[in-house]
Amino acid sequence: MTMIEEAISGIAPLDRSAMEEATARQEMLTKPVGSLGRLEKLSVQLAGITGNPRPTVERKLVITMAGDHGVAAEGVSAFPVEVTPQMVHNFLSGGAAVNVLARQAGARVCVVDMGIACDMPTVEGLRRRKISYGTGNIALGPAMSREQAVRAIEAGIGVVEEEMAAGLDLVATGDMGIANTTPSSAVTAAVTGASAAEVTGRGTGISDESLSRKIEVIERALQVNRPDPNDGLDVLAKVGGFEIGGLAGVIIGAAANRIPVVVDGFISGAAMLIALVLAPEVKPYLIASHRSVEGGHTLAMRWAGLEPLLDLDMRLGEGTGAVLSMHIVEAACRILDEMATFASAGVSAT
Amino acid sequence: MTMIEEAISGIAPLDRSAMEEATARQEMLTKPVGSLGRLEKLSVQLAGITGNPRPTVERKLVITMAGDHGVAAEGVSAFPVEVTPQMVHNFLSGGAAVNVLARQAGARVCVVDMGIACDMPTVEGLRRRKISYGTGNIALGPAMSREQAVRAIEAGIGVVEEEMAAGLDLVATGDMGIANTTPSSAVTAAVTGASAAEVTGRGTGISDESLSRKIEVIERALQVNRPDPNDGLDVLAKVGGFEIGGLAGVIIGAAANRIPVVVDGFISGAAMLIALVLAPEVKPYLIASHRSVEGGHTLAMRWAGLEPLLDLDMRLGEGTGAVLSMHIVEAACRILDEMATFASAGVSAT
Repeated sequence: MTMIEEAISGIAPLDRSAMEEATARQEMLTKPVGSLGRLEKLSVQLAGITGNPRPTVERKLVITMAGDHGVAAEGVSAFPVEVTPQMVHNFLSGGAAVNVLARQAGARVCVVDMGIACDMPTVEGLRRRKISYGTGNIALGPAMSREQAVRAIEAGIGVVEEEMAAGLDLVATGDMGIANTTPSSAVTAAVTGASAAEVTGRGTGISDESLSRKIEVIERALQVNRPDPNDGLDVLAKVGGFEIGGLAGVIIGAAANRIPVVVDGFISGAAMLIALVLAPEVKPYLIASHRSVEGGHTLAMRWAGLEPLLDLDMRLGEGTGAVLSMHIVEAACRILDEMATFASAGVSAT
Repeated sequence: MTMIEEAISGIAPLDRSAMEEATARQEMLTKPVGSLGRLEKLSVQLAGITGNPRPTVERKLVITMAGDHGVAAEGVSAFPVEVTPQMVHNFLSGGAAVNVLARQAGARVCVVDMGIACDMPTVEGLRRRKISYGTGNIALGPAMSREQAVRAIEAGIGVVEEEMAAGLDLVATGDMGIANTTPSSAVTAAVTGASAAEVTGRGTGISDESLSRKIEVIERALQVNRPDPNDGLDVLAKVGGFEIGGLAGVIIGAAANRIPVVVDGFISGAAMLIALVLAPEVKPYLIASHRSVEGGHTLAMRWAGLEPLLDLDMRLGEGTGAVLSMHIVEAACRILDEMATFASAGVSAT
């Protein structure tokens, strides 16, 4: 059995008994039943994931994976490719948006080089899992070999398992990679069956003209590569990215270890689609954090049957939406754990 | 000049210069311009409110005001009226949902007796601002006299001003009062012009039959009292509540002191409508926290021209939605204050 098969075979269904206990406790707490809406449902989901009827969210982590993309040569991004390693340095020195939000949420940040197109200096805090120096240009051929796709996913599984040593109650996915909305659009189109135009947005902020070119590039990528929507590894290899594969691995690895995963925006959504094609059993472990401005993200969430927690017109990636939603997930668990019951507080029930 | 007039005359427009400085800084931070969506807009709003181009949100407070309602006699609530003082005790001992969420958000909780129908024991932490022992039954006549309405609003202004001594960067509104969705529906109908049926929901969770009765009660309250939609004090006196008036005062008092106000759900929304009728200049100081399940809340927000930050199927009140959204408001300010700029991080801009 390969490492990926082994992880997938380790994904258990949610713990029904813990969920029933959590539901019963929610009904005893001093509030009308159901009045905390999605917070109540989230708390029951976390109980089922962890097997703990009163789960806690203390040790939080965002895994931000970086990779470069050959398709950047087609002029699909507003930013030059040097920005990928520059932003990775910014993550490592704590100045990026994801760092600020992670400090607020009390989450640690794990930065992973999955396939940056240059050599990165040995810097404290950077995980080196480089599969290659950027992917191939998907407008001309595959992003990577099937073997590289396997290694990218395995790297993601491995990072989660390493991070468990430091304690891990909740993990968030995040990405960095100039041009990575283009492979994400291609993955989303391949898996959901939507057209390139439906799944393609402005990314970091491109003009109308660049948007038309980007759609054409994605159409070409799909025609040239013909990814098989029923084969997650094929979709990843043909039109994906190294960070996208790594994040699919993070999702699978977290589910295999009963750790809830908060999925960030559009790029993480593409990784989620690949994970779901490979292993539909990851679904109950997923928490959709926010609705990205990228229209393809809404299609991906609909395909997965998930409803994001937040809708704040964000489109940055890095894990920013996922980390922001950690407050909501933590709130859900604290409500379940800390609130008084009708009996303990001496409050009359209906 | 009365205390209310004085407070209203002290409400200044937002500080344009601080807003311009905040906007200029947002454009220098290491992210595509606009990519943090509503977080960016919120940070600029907070700059304008506080006059500080890099505002911070450290000292947070939720003011939870409690009152009883004569209209409870019409059988409009799923809970008995004893629950109002019981829940106030729960707030004071830290076991209610708002306490749990306030601990997580680092906010202090101020509990105010605005008009509970029984004498409350002298308990540490309870502010006594009782206007009367519950309102009159609005299905039969006015909730309170115009003089009591004035005193309720003044009490709210006073509580904010007292709390400023302990430091105050962000205030949230919250409510407790069995049957208080009924006056809130009546206030919302009176101010927005919507019908009783459009603004009436199930509150804590009533049956279809009780819902029909509740709508009839609200129709009767509007017919019997004929509140003047252009006179906030008249609406409050005729069909409001003591905690609703107090919260309108909190909103006016906060705006007069350049403190941003996070408005909770449906009851706080009714208080906001009264504050807006009395003083439209409070509007830029408001942050709508979440969309309540109560349909009337959406109409109130639309009338006010506000878009809630969260939509999590909540309908509890107490300030729970407002406190939960404080994480988002704090995130917005931290992003503006803590992120690296393109220049400082050595990242290439577009």
